Formats: sequence, C-alpha cells, structure tokens
Amino acid sequence: MRTQEQYLEHLASMRHNIYIDGECIGRDDPRVVHASSAIRMTFSLVDNPEFKDLLTATSHITGKRINRYTHIHQSPEDLMKKQELTRKICGIAGGCIQRCMGVDMMNAISSVVKDVDTKYGTPYYERFLKFLEYFQENDIVAAGSQTDTKGDRAARPHEQWDPDQYLHVVERRPDGVVVRGAKVHNTMAPYAEELIVVPTRAMTPEDKDYAIAFAIPADTEGVYMIGRAAYMGQREPNLDAPISEIGDIESMTVFDNVFVPNERIFLNGETEFAGMLALRFALYHRHSYTGCKPGIGDVIMGTTSVLADYQNIKKQSHIKEKLAEMISVAELVYAAGIASAVKSTKASSGTQVPDVIFCNVGRRHAGHNIYHELNMLCDVSGGLPATLPGTKDYNSPVVGKFVQKYVTRREGVSSEDCYRIFNLANDLLCSELGSISFQIAGVHGGGSPIMEDIAVLGSYDLKSREKLAKHLAGIKD
Amino acid sequence: MRTQEQYLEHLASMRHNIYIDGECIGRDDPRVVHASSAIRMTFSLVDNPEFKDLLTATSHITGKRINRYTHIHQSPEDLMKKQELTRKICGIAGGCIQRCMGVDMMNAISSVVKDVDTKYGTPYYERFLKFLEYFQENDIVAAGSQTDTKGDRAARPHEQWDPDQYLHVVERRPDGVVVRGAKVHNTMAPYAEELIVVPTRAMTPEDKDYAIAFAIPADTEGVYMIGRAAYMGQREPNLDAPISEIGDIESMTVFDNVFVPNERIFLNGETEFAGMLALRFALYHRHSYTGCKPGIGDVIMGTTSVLADYQNIKKQSHIKEKLAEMISVAELVYAAGIASAVKSTKASSGTQVPDVIFCNVGRRHAGHNIYHELNMLCDVSGGLPATLPGTKDYNSPVVGKFVQKYVTRREGVSSEDCYRIFNLANDLLCSELGSISFQIAGVHGGGSPIMEDIAVLGSYDLKSREKLAKHLAGIKD
Amino acid sequence: MRTQEQYLEHLASMRHNIYIDGECIGRDDPRVVHASSAIRMTFSLVDNPEFKDLLTATSHITGKRINRYTHIHQSPEDLMKKQELTRKICGIAGGCIQRCMGVDMMNAISSVVKDVDTKYGTPYYERFLKFLEYFQENDIVAAGSQTDTKGDRAARPHEQWDPDQYLHVVERRPDGVVVRGAKVHNTMAPYAEELIVVPTRAMTPEDKDYAIAFAIPADTEGVYMIGRAAYMGQREPNLDAPISEIGDIESMTVFDNVFVPNERIFLNGETEFAGMLALRFALYHRHSYTGCKPGIGDVIMGTTSVLADYQNIKKQSHIKEKLAEMISVAELVYAAGIASAVKSTKASSGTQVPDVIFCNVGRRHAGHNIYHELNMLCDVSGGLPATLPGTKDYNSPVVGKFVQKYVTRREGVSSEDCYRIFNLANDLLCSELGSISFQIAGVHGGGSPIMEDIAVLGSYDLKSREKLAKHLAGIKD
Amino acid sequence: MRTQEQYLEHLASMRHNIYIDGECIGRDDPRVVHASSAIRMTFSLVDNPEFKDLLTATSHITGKRINRYTHIHQSPEDLMKKQELTRKICGIAGGCIQRCMGVDMMNAISSVVKDVDTKYGTPYYERFLKFLEYFQENDIVAAGSQTDTKGDRAARPHEQWDPDQYLHVVERRPDGVVVRGAKVHNTMAPYAEELIVVPTRAMTPEDKDYAIAFAIPADTEGVYMIGRAAYMGQREPNLDAPISEIGDIESMTVFDNVFVPNERIFLNGETEFAGMLALRFALYHRHSYTGCKPGIGDVIMGTTSVLADYQNIKKQSHIKEKLAEMISVAELVYAAGIASAVKSTKASSGTQVPDVIFCNVGRRHAGHNIYHELNMLCDVSGGLPATLPGTKDYNSPVVGKFVQKYVTRREGVSSEDCYRIFNLANDLLCSELGSISFQIAGVHGGGSPIMEDIAVLGSYDLKSREKLAKHLAGIKD
Repeated sequence: MRTQEQYLEHLASMRHNIYIDGECIGRDDPRVVHASSAIRMTFSLVDNPEFKDLLTATSHITGKRINRYTHIHQSPEDLMKKQELTRKICGIAGGCIQRCMGVDMMNAISSVVKDVDTKYGTPYYERFLKFLEYFQENDIVAAGSQTDTKGDRAARPHEQWDPDQYLHVVERRPDGVVVRGAKVHNTMAPYAEELIVVPTRAMTPEDKDYAIAFAIPADTEGVYMIGRAAYMGQREPNLDAPISEIGDIESMTVFDNVFVPNERIFLNGETEFAGMLALRFALYHRHSYTGCKPGIGDVIMGTTSVLADYQNIKKQSHIKEKLAEMISVAELVYAAGIASAVKSTKASSGTQVPDVIFCNVGRRHAGHNIYHELNMLCDVSGGLPATLPGTKDYNSPVVGKFVQKYVTRREGVSSEDCYRIFNLANDLLCSELGSISFQIAGVHGGGSPIMEDIAVLGSYDLKSREKLAKHLAGIKD
Repeated sequence: MRTQEQYLEHLASMRHNIYIDGECIGRDDPRVVHASSAIRMTFSLVDNPEFKDLLTATSHITGKRINRYTHIHQSPEDLMKKQELTRKICGIAGGCIQRCMGVDMMNAISSVVKDVDTKYGTPYYERFLKFLEYFQENDIVAAGSQTDTKGDRAARPHEQWDPDQYLHVVERRPDGVVVRGAKVHNTMAPYAEELIVVPTRAMTPEDKDYAIAFAIPADTEGVYMIGRAAYMGQREPNLDAPISEIGDIESMTVFDNVFVPNERIFLNGETEFAGMLALRFALYHRHSYTGCKPGIGDVIMGTTSVLADYQNIKKQSHIKEKLAEMISVAELVYAAGIASAVKSTKASSGTQVPDVIFCNVGRRHAGHNIYHELNMLCDVSGGLPATLPGTKDYNSPVVGKFVQKYVTRREGVSSEDCYRIFNLANDLLCSELGSISFQIAGVHGGGSPIMEDIAVLGSYDLKSREKLAKHLAGIKD
Repeated sequence: MRTQEQYLEHLASMRHNIYIDGECIGRDDPRVVHASSAIRMTFSLVDNPEFKDLLTATSHITGKRINRYTHIHQSPEDLMKKQELTRKICGIAGGCIQRCMGVDMMNAISSVVKDVDTKYGTPYYERFLKFLEYFQENDIVAAGSQTDTKGDRAARPHEQWDPDQYLHVVERRPDGVVVRGAKVHNTMAPYAEELIVVPTRAMTPEDKDYAIAFAIPADTEGVYMIGRAAYMGQREPNLDAPISEIGDIESMTVFDNVFVPNERIFLNGETEFAGMLALRFALYHRHSYTGCKPGIGDVIMGTTSVLADYQNIKKQSHIKEKLAEMISVAELVYAAGIASAVKSTKASSGTQVPDVIFCNVGRRHAGHNIYHELNMLCDVSGGLPATLPGTKDYNSPVVGKFVQKYVTRREGVSSEDCYRIFNLANDLLCSELGSISFQIAGVHGGGSPIMEDIAVLGSYDLKSREKLAKHLAGIKD
Repeated sequence: MRTQEQYLEHLASMRHNIYIDGECIGRDDPRVVHASSAIRMTFSLVDNPEFKDLLTATSHITGKRINRYTHIHQSPEDLMKKQELTRKICGIAGGCIQRCMGVDMMNAISSVVKDVDTKYGTPYYERFLKFLEYFQENDIVAAGSQTDTKGDRAARPHEQWDPDQYLHVVERRPDGVVVRGAKVHNTMAPYAEELIVVPTRAMTPEDKDYAIAFAIPADTEGVYMIGRAAYMGQREPNLDAPISEIGDIESMTVFDNVFVPNERIFLNGETEFAGMLALRFALYHRHSYTGCKPGIGDVIMGTTSVLADYQNIKKQSHIKEKLAEMISVAELVYAAGIASAVKSTKASSGTQVPDVIFCNVGRRHAGHNIYHELNMLCDVSGGLPATLPGTKDYNSPVVGKFVQKYVTRREGVSSEDCYRIFNLANDLLCSELGSISFQIAGVHGGGSPIMEDIAVLGSYDLKSREKLAKHLAGIKD
C-alpha cells in the first residue's frame, strides 16, 4: 500500500493534460493537490487504529493486505465495511470521499464480464484479473468515466446527429481500438491515475461501436480533461478549519481519437451487456451512496445541533423535529445499504453484488431529501451563513471587534466558536462547492433520480403484488 | 400447537364481558368471530409449506416446536423471520395480522424484567418464564393493553384531576393487587384470551402505584371491553372476495377494581423501569410494523398496478413514478427492519432486542407515508371507488346489465374483474375499516409519530455528530 | 324562490328511477331526503340575514331576485360572492354544498354556446336563455353529468371497443336526438330535478356523435340512476349533532336510448367546442372548489383546535405548526379564487369567466393537500376517533359510565363535550362519507389532479418565461 | 425623479464606512456599483413605456409624479401595482430588486406612528411626513435595518448578558439620542443613502430603551457596514449575459454610539408599539415577496423549460409535472398578494395596509418551496451546471472546440446557446449568490418561516372555526 506522498509523486510525473480556466496545468498544481484531500485521507488513515480494519482488506487474488478501495467484494461483510468506511471518511472529510469511483468500476467489471466470456468466449475476465492485480499492487486511484454527453436525449447512440455524442470506436486495429467522444461529470478524474470507461446505457445491436469498456492511464495521448474546480471558502490562517481543505474538480473528459490496447479492453461490441455493465456500475455506486450520504447527513445534523445549542434553542420542539427528520433520512439510507448487503448475491465470478432494490431505494431516498435537509439546516441557522463577514473582517483592526462581538450568541460560548460554526454553515449552505457537491451531486451522482425509478421498476417483483391484489379481490389470475 | 377451531372453542367458553353497540355479547358472536380472521390464519397456515418455517419456531425454554407468535426471539434471524412472516400474512389477509400484540408484549417483558430482578431481587423473570411456558404450551392469543386514557395531557399520572386516567393499583393484598383504570386502542382484545398490561410512559417516584405490569385472562371479573367493530364492505355471495373476510374490533378495556394475583405481576412499583418497559413494547411493536406496513404496501401497490393495467394506463410515466414511490416506501421500511435485526443486541435474559434507531425510523417512515400512499392509489383509481354501485345493483335484474357494462375498461378484461378491482379499491379507500386500520392505525399504531421522534432522539448518538461538526469547523471540544 | 318543502314536494312527484342496493326507490325515500340536507340549506337560509346578500342575486335576464345558485355571473363581485357563499355553507353543513353543480353547468353553457352560434348560426344560446328563465323562475336544482365511463383510457371516444363508453347520439330525429351511454360520479343527481349533460373531453371530427350537450328532467324515460349512498355515523337522539345530517348519493347515471328534444340541446356535433365546454364546466367547478375546500378546511382546523384544547396540548409548537399549515392551505386556495375573480374576463355572452390559471392552481393545491390535512387532524386527535365506543355504549346502563369517565380529558370540559368532539373527528376521519366526500372527491372532484396540470399548461404563458430565461442567458430569440 | 447616474454620484460622495474583506472602501468601488444593478434599473426603466405606469405614482402629499419605490400606498391598486412591478423587475434582473426595502419601511412607519401620536401626543407622524417629502423629492434609496443580532435566543432584549445584542438607546440628549448595537442581514445597505431602523420584535415595558425607530444617512458618524458581497459567475466578454450583472452586498451594520437627531426619530420608548412596527415592516416586505418570488419563479421555470427544449425532453410527462408545480407555486404566491390587496384596509393615516393572513400565507408558501423549485430545476438540468467548463475553456484555442462540441444538445440549437443556458443554470444552482439570494434569502428574507406561522396564528380568526366545529359536534359554546 502506498502513502499519500507516493500518490502525489506519481500524479506530478504524469503528462500535462488538465485544463482549468483555459490553462493547461500539471497534477502538482495546488488546485489539483487541494482537491485531492479526501483521496489522500484514504492513504493517510490506513494505519489509524480506528480505520485499520475498515480501510484494508485481503485480496482474493493475491491474499495480500490491500487498500479496501482496490478490493473486489467477496461477502456481505465486505459490502457493509465499505459502506461504514465511506460514511466515516465522508464525515471526517466533510464531503465526498471521491475514491469510491474506482473501486465501484472495478467491482462492476468484475461482476459482469465473466458472463460475457461465457457467452462469447472472449478473454475479458482474464484481462481484468491482470489489471486488477496491477491495480491492487500499486494501490491505484481510478476515476469512473461513464456519462456520455448524449446530445439529443430523444435519440439512441447510433441515431445522434453528431455520432460523437456517445463515446465510440472509430477504428479497429489488431492491437486495439481507437475511440472518440467525451465523458462528463467525471469527479476527481484530474487526480486519478487511471480512467475506467463503461457505457452509459443499454444498447441495441445498431449501437455496436458504442458498446465499449476499457481502462487507460489518465494521461494517455489524446485524452483532455477540462476541469471545473470548486473549494470551500478560504480563510485567514488563524481561522482555518478542516472544512476548508476539501475540494473537488469535475472533468469533461475528451477522448480525441485515443488508442486503447487490447489488454485493457473489457467489452467491445457485445451490445446486450452494455446496459448490464452500465447498471452494475450504477448499482455499486448507489451502494457507495448508502454510505456517503449518511456521512454527509451526519455533518448536516451535527452542524444543526451545534447551531441550535449556541443559539440556545435546542429544546424547541421544531428543532427536535428537524433533527429527528435528519436522523431518519440518514438512517433509512444507511439501513437500505445494510439490507442490500444482507440480501446480496454472488456473480458468476464470485463478486458480491448488492441487492438492486434496496440499493436503489436507499440512494433514491437520499437524492430526494438532500435539498430538504439543507433547507432544514438553513431554517435553523437563520440568515447569518449568507451575511457573515469574512475572516479578514474578523481580523480587521477597525471592524474586527464588532464582528467578534455581534456573532456571539449564548453566554458560555466564545465568539470565535460562534463565528466558526456559522462559517461552517456558510460552507455547507452558500458555497459553490456545497451547491455542486451536496446539492447537484446529491441529486444526480450515481445516476439521476429517474434512473433509480427505472432501475427499481426494472427489477421489482410487481407481479407478485398484482397477484396479491387479485387474490384479495377474488380475481382468478 | 392449536387449530383455529380450538381457539374459537376457547373463545366461546369465556365469560361474556364484551360490549358492542350497547349489547353484551359472547365471543362466539359472528361479529367477534368475523373480526378474528387474520388471527385464525396464524393457526390455519401453520402446516402450509410456504409458511411452515416462518410460522413455527423452537422454544428456547422447552425445545418444543411452537407457533412463532408465542416465541421469544433468540437471534437476528428470529427477528427477520417474524418480520417476513408478518409482511406475508398481512399481504394475504389484506390487513393487520393482529396477533403480533401478544408476542411483542411477551418479548418486551422478557427483555426487561430480569434487570428489575437484578436490581431489586424481585421474582418477576421467574414468574414470567412460568407464564411463558403456559403461553407457548397452549398457543395463547394475547392482547396488549398499554395506552392509558391519559386525561389532561399536560399532567403526569399522579397529577391527574381524575386519578383513574392512568391504570393504577388501588389496593395491595398479600396474594396480589387490585387495579383500576382503562386501556384504550386495544386492537383485537375482544378475541384475545389473555390481556398483557404494561405502563404507557416513563414515571417518577410519585407515580409508584401506576408502575404496574401484569397478565390476566381477558374475561377476569371486573374487566369490561367496549368494542368498536369495523369490517370491509359485505357483498352478495357471487361477488365475495377474501378482502371481505377481514375485520377488526378495537376495545376500550376497563379495569373496574380487578384483582391480579401475584404470580401474574411482572412490575409493581419499580417506577424507573416503567418507561423502559413502555418503550420496549413500543420497540417490538414498531419492529412488527417494519413487516406489516410493507405487507399493506404490497396490497396498495398491487391494487394500483392492476387498476392501471385494466384502465390501460400502465405505461404512463406518472403511474411509474407512483409505483416507484410506493415500492420505495415499502422497501425502506422493510430495510429498516432488516437493519434493526442485523444491529440487534441481547438483553440480560438473552432475549434479542432490535436496534432502537432503525426500528423507529422504519416505523416513522411508514406512518409518515400511509396517507400519501393511499392518496396515490386514489389518484390512479379515479373516482369510481367512491361511486361504485353495490353488489346488489350489480346483480339487479333491472340495472345489473348497466353496472356490468359501464364498469368495464380495456378490452380483454371481464366486466366482473373490473368490478372486483374497483371494489377492492373501494374497500381500501372508502371503508370504515380502511380508515381505521390503514390510516389511523397506520399513523398511531405502535405509538404516535411524535413518540418515534422522542424514541429516536432519546437513543441517537447526536453527540458524535456534533463532534464531527466541531472538528470540521475547527472548534476545540 | 322556493322553500325547501316545495323542492321536496317536487322531488316526491317525480318518476321512480333511482336504484340503491338493488331497490328502485322514490325521491321521498328517507335515504334520498337525508342526502339532500346541504341543498335544502340553500333554500332555508335564503332569508337568514347573514346569508341574504350572498344567497340571492338579481337575474340579468329578468331583473328578478333569484337564488344565487341559479345565477349567471356578471361581474368579479358575483364570482367572489359565490365563492364566499360556498365556503360558508360548506362550513355550516360540514361537507359538500352539492348545489354548485347546476349553477356551474349553467355558467359553462352560457359562456360557450354563443360562440358556437356565431360560428355555425346555431340557435343554442337562445335555447339556453329560455331554459335559464325556467331554471331561475322555478329555482331549479340541477346535477352535472359530465364524466363518461371512458372504457379504455388509451382510446378516443370513436375508437372505443364498446362505443357506449362515451355518451353519444344513436339516432337523429327532426324533433331531437336519442342518446346512449352513462355518466358517472354524478354527485346529488338522485335529488336533482334536471340533469345537465356536457362532453367530458376534447374531441376530433371523428367523434361528432359524442359532441353533445343538453338538459333534461332527471326522471326522463330511459334514465336510470344507480346510487351509492353514504352518511355520517348515526347516533342516539341525545347525542345527535348537525354533522349527522349530512349525506351524499353518488350516481352512475345511465342513458338507455333517451330522447332529448331540440329545445334542450346546446351542442350537437360541433366537435371543436366539445373540449372548450368540458374545460369551461371544469373551470367553474374548480372555482367552486376555491370556496368549498376552504370551507372544509375551516371544519378540519376548527376540529383540530378544539381537540388540542380539550386535551390541553394547544400550546405545543407542533400543534401550532399544524394549524398554521392548515390555515395556509385554506387561505391560499381561497386567495386563488379571489385572484381568479380579479383577473376574470367576459365571454361574448357577457358571462363572467374566472381566470383559468388561478382557478386551477387553487383547486390543485386543495386536491394535493386534502390527505395531508386529514393526516394532520389524525396526528392531533390520536387514535380515539378510530376506537371510540358508539353512542349506544355511551348510553348503556352497564358500561355507559365507563365510556363517559374515560373519554374525559382536561378539567373543565364535560365528558359529553369530549365525547362529541372525538365523535366529530370520527366522522371526519373514519366514516365512509368522509372518505368519499373529503378524500376521494377532494382529489378528483372537478377533475382529477392531472387534468389541472393539463389545464394550467394549456393556458399558461410559458413562452414569456422562456424569453426571460433567454434574455438572462444572453440568448437571442 | 433622478437618473441612475445621479444616484451613483451621490453614493460616490458619501463618507467611506463600508468594509469588505478587511478593506474600507468607497461607494464608487466597482464591487459596490456592480451590486447595485437591480436598484439602478428602478431609475433607468422609469421612462420605459412598459414600466412607466408601474414605476411611477402620484405622491399623496405633494401631488407630484414620483418613483413608486418612494410611494405610500393609498389603495388596493397601489398595492397590486407594486406587486406586479416587483415581479417584473425581478424577472428581468434575474434576482432581488433590493429597493423594496426602503419603500416597505416607509409604509410601515406611515401606517403605525400616527396611532402612537394619538395615544401619547408624540410628533412622530409629522416628523415622518417631513422625512417623506425629502425622500420623495430626492428619490432616495433606503435600506431597512431591522434584525438585531439577538444573542441568546431564549432571552428578551433587556435580559441579554450583552445588552448590545439588541440595538438600544445608550444616551438621551435634548436634541436626540445616542444608540448602540448592530443590525444584520441588511441587504443593499452599502449602496443605500439612508438607513431606516425599526425594532425586530415585540417588547415589554422593561425593554423601553430598545423600542426605538429612526432614519439616518447611511454614512453617519459611528455607522460601520461590514459587507459580504456575492455575484454571479463572471464571464469572458464574448459570453457575457445579463445574469452576470446582478450582485448583492449583505451588511452587518454596526451602530457604535451613533447620534440620532430628534427630527429623525419615529418611536422612542413606546414599547407596546414596537411589536406592531416590527410586524408591519414584515407585512409590507412579505407583500413585496408576493411579487419578487413569482418573479424568481418565472426565471426558474423559464430556464427549466428552455433546458428541456434544448435537450429534447420537453414532452416527457415528468417535465410537464415539474413545470405545472413551478407555475402553481409562483401563481399561488402571486394570488395571495392579489387577495391581500383586495382585502387590504386603511390605517389611521390613510396608508393602505395589505391583509395580514394572505400576505403571510403567500410569503410562507414561497419560502417553503424555494429549495423544492431549485431541486426540480436541478432534476431537469442534469449534472452539467455543476461540471460545466468555464468561459475561458470555451474560448481556449486548445480545448475550446471540445467544449463547444460536447455541450451541444439537439439539432437546431447552436452550441453557444446550449452553453449559455447551462451557464445560466449554473448561476442559479451553483453560485454563491444563488445560494445566498435564492435559497437563504428565499427562506429567511422578510422574516423566518416560523415568524410567518406566528404572524398567521396571531391574526387568524381561529375562534370562528372552533365555533363551526362545536356547532357540527353539537357542543354548546
């Protein structure tokens, strides 16, 4: 297992293909390093006694101790540990763990491509195992590149007026393929070492060139990442806080005629498996959400509770109701993750697959409630997060004393602590990163809300419920 | 284990102390027998291969095969089986299983009174085990009598202007105590053989006479049950259906100076355990709700789906959204039950206690959504459940042909089947029993919504979330 | 203007064509008379000083003083008076006023058919004025017959596999037409004197025979009404209360080859006006809902407030929140009605037409919230409405004293008053009529929720909002 | 009436007492000027034919043509015009109009202080009229300073451990008073010419020194404004758009021993009027919200509709439902404003006072739904607002072509237009100003949600609804 320093060193050595605000930058640019803070925790916490058991696992292919974010789940317990781990780190980081992308992609491929091989005699699973060994040995950080730009939403891939709106094979060579297209919403791709690419939807036989899955180094020739970076508010040093450390870069990842060698291809034209692979990544990623969203929920409810305490309104019944509602959202989502592990099954490769229904209703509940949770935090915080003077004003020799005096709340809590908790609420409620990471990603991450409905309805045994209704109505089926 | 006939025979032999509409009736009155239909299924299905494993268990005190509704849970699996069983029978019955009352009371007492004995040297647990043996041997049906009438809600038991508004000891004798008061919302008490009585709330030392728990035969001298009976709509024989069989009697159970012998007393003045016992019954009963509410959810979503099919609107996206929402409610509640078993713990007596948080957020979610689910069913059914001609009109030689013609929907579905599904929707949406059993009991059964918030906030580790917020804000705790 | 006695006399004289529970009954049957209670109030309150100004109007055709429920609105004030009147009577009656049906139909026809005449030279408006004079002179009670049975929801009228699933002309004669079909959800039709029939939807040229509107006496040969009657719980005389008086009969009204004379036909084949007439009735009826739903809201919030008072929980903040929410629902709906009058316009005939958007968003908000309002009442009432002993038990020489003792709440409120308020809550929450009239009719009356969305989207100036967005985005339109 | 240039000139001439990020700046600082864009529109649009009638009014004291944002409402029509005007400008500006602050404060004082004079013989109304004349003549822009910092929320003003947590009189002189304290959430105060200060809550006799209302120039000695500035995302010139122009500065306004001359004092120790004045400003400001919130709603729904169009999903039924819901929110709020004008009354001074209930339920509905509206926009926009490359990337010679290609959606819409609409969605959903202005101010502006409940419950005639319930229940009152 690597240290965070080794990870950063590797990033620094990579080819420059990251663009932010029109500039081409290296992966040692402070903006990139800053954004990787949550991922760095997955390296730095590995020996922390509280995390040791959660953050490491035993590789089922090598028997070695590996980072759990490179592990293929072998049991319900593995799924539950990943869920608990993700909740904990998201809580401590104050935001998205980011590294789940890679492990969710790896598990998706692991659980699907053996079935492709069985049907078509392809060598995907064997290739995958080789890649997996490299991945685990080198403790790799990978991004997931799934969502195509999709152009006209009413047209299938092969029907698009611009054929590149879904990533596709434009040339087939003996040693590999050349692909073109772009994948969007690629969280953390600018500080990932590998990109794992899978289809974004089910395909028909006409979509053959679009049914492609592979992994390549993130600095491969022809790959361009156009990033949108966002951070929490930056503060004067004396008022700094862990929440300021978190950041995020979202990438539009362009594949401009990129060559992919055969040994890194895991699906290539087997269209009927495209949808399964797309859904499987979504499934693992929604399982991650049953951990990370309760982690964010912990932060929101903790902030709410401290705010209520400092303002001396903690005993008011509307505060209690809001806290009970926040707990309910977080724990229902978490319960859905546990149930999805209890009812998980094994793929043909032995990979543990969480239950589709429980994962999806859990993720769905999180997504349906994130705006509501922030709304409740906003109710309790009052307007001050939006109107709070900045840290330079707090430190100002002229007006600093006023800021310090007038942000104070109940007796017994220092002015600085009051300021700090309102500033945290400001980060959660009024920052660009908060909007991006809690709200938009809270709704769309791991698949948009309507995709969860589709996933649920596609798998649910509604027939048995119809039978129940007909039985009760006295209708002979 | 008994047959339903043996159960009914025993009921018939009991002293007449049931009052409905001003009449005193026996337990062989058709209104009583009708209402017991769901309970009778817990006897009649015991040899059904689909239910055998769920409906029976091995007694931990005698090693004998017993009905699960008399079993003390010994493991997470026991809890999951009770949950699954309850969901299944509620689905088939089309409503409340009713028999969970007794088993939930028994588990509550089993998990609490050993701690009382440890602290006070009382003999409650030993007494309880004797009662339990009788209970299991005779496959007893018991009601739970918990909710006091409570009078002025702003006053504690000993502060009430009428001291009988909470049940209490009015006389202490060497061989037992005499109690007075009334317990309300006693579902199925009129066809229970035993009444198990526990406190309804936490108590202070001044409430000593109110801290009383016991079990007595339901026809004990001085016990009066004043019943409210409700049934689904009754139909002409040719249009009869299983949904018509279900019924319910709710009882205001009056204890008018009732003698309780020592061997049946399980708490008597140990006020600090009153709240724990009250909450523990609520906990087991909320665990039951994680089974029964998804069972009712299955009926609602099945009915919705068949209605959409018969009207030929199944593919409309608002139908899909409603079904996805219904599935989500049912499965989140069910997931909470599973998680409460996974995270369950053992009481000092070895009784398995489900996790408080997961049980409560599950029950809470069910209660918060039941009106919403019926609202969605109503949306899909259209107005016909409310305006459907009765079965006598359906059979009328004059207008029957019109009814039959004009309730028909899409081609290929018989007029009778259309009529039957709308009639089922009528039962679910527009019947007295539907309102009582789905809506009111859906909200208040197992404790009112605010009690769940209190239970959640009383047990949740909010402190650790506050620490998380302070850590992120840079506040030293 | 007539008295309620004259109205009942006329009803009693009509041909027997009402069927309930398989029986053919006269309009003097107690079930029918009982159900007409709200309508009778529109006669009996006409001289009540509090209602005089609201319940009467000046006919724009005769200049005579008439009952407002026969009036064609001539101004915004007329619309506001009808709204206020409807709210008040619904509040006093404890339910649906019912008589709005006729006046809403009359205004719909009045505001549409002159345009038909202008386009086609038809004599509909003149015929209508004659009918209106009869209607006003005789203070007629009319039902609205709009909703066809619709069979396969995916098929238009002329595409139905059973052509009678929409009412249509089956024979054309010099003196009139013969129609066949059925109209459902015909509230109060069994105690209406006239049936006013309009199309239920927009039509295409192929649907010519279905584009028919007319009025006929309710006992016309060939008309069969198959009724579903529902009432609030009946009580022992000493415990009687105004809420028990209300009732309702919903009718499936069959037109089995019914002859309609020319002078009563107001649309006949002009298909492009079918949708407008359908929507116009819906519009007037939704305007009525901006009065009646706040009236029901008044009853629900009043009951909630008294319940909270008697239980001594009125100062708890969750009670206040629920009351504020109930007030908000009622007054937003009422405000929408006011705004629809302020922004109303005149049809070519001079008839005042309320604003489509405001009426629809008002009705929509009422329909979206009725289950929610009852849910809140249920929260506050606790379980007792569902488990309340009946009035015979209250009067029982044996158990009456127990009932009276144990329904008592805070000091200072008599046992009887406590019993009465819980019994009212029982009627609102747990009665067949409550489910039908508050819940189902609350959702579907005046058109199902999706129809309001369609009406809103069909009329709203979304284009101007798109322009606004493009302007802000810097997009040239 | 002035021009915007005159307004800016006056700003530039004022004493420097604005602090942002630790710097003391003048009112000609670009950050200040930028933020004033919406206010500048109230000057620049005054001769625009579309706005002329709305933006000007006739002064009731001088008979002169004045800017409506300095007018005292004299009729329901005045209120409706202010509402319509506010909606329109907010729509065109893409955010908060800001100038309503001053006019709402002026109307509040105008409608209250004459009653103080009547009771106490004070000269407040006369002073006010003089100030009003100055205000109208000079077309003044004023900020409202109401919300005190409040310290311990469980303590009244005079009970605070720091007496300055509510602004109060610290010295009384013959020619005026000296005040100390701070007012927070002072939107636009840094570019206002006058500060109008009123109490934030009801007061008891012990709070005498806190019952103070006055107006002073914003650069008065001792006044410090500590600002938090926020803007929409800034763009490369070729991609600029009107939405980028809007900005906001929120101020913590400190009164550090500020002298207020007698002629500018409008309340001074008459504690029983403090609450009325506080509520009255809230009332007028909530009335403003019935205009501005529908204006923001117009922007949100327009953006949603264009996004759906460009992605070619406009006909999907979930889009229609979301648009219908957005329309419903906006128009119910707007209807409440209309109804509040229809039911408005005259204060003793002749000032028109909107109806309390309708204003409050309107504002409340807006506040309860703003997060929900943005959630719906987020649903429809997909993740791209959060991951959109910046305008420098759009213009980049290297990656610009990729950005342009991959943000394109359906055929027929230019790449630039697609980019522009997603960028607008980015501003609405993911910007600091969006969070502050739409979300936080949407919830708390004009008073926090709980204050609306208090205002509603304080004014609503709940007694008459209780009477209705008792009448229906047969309870004698």
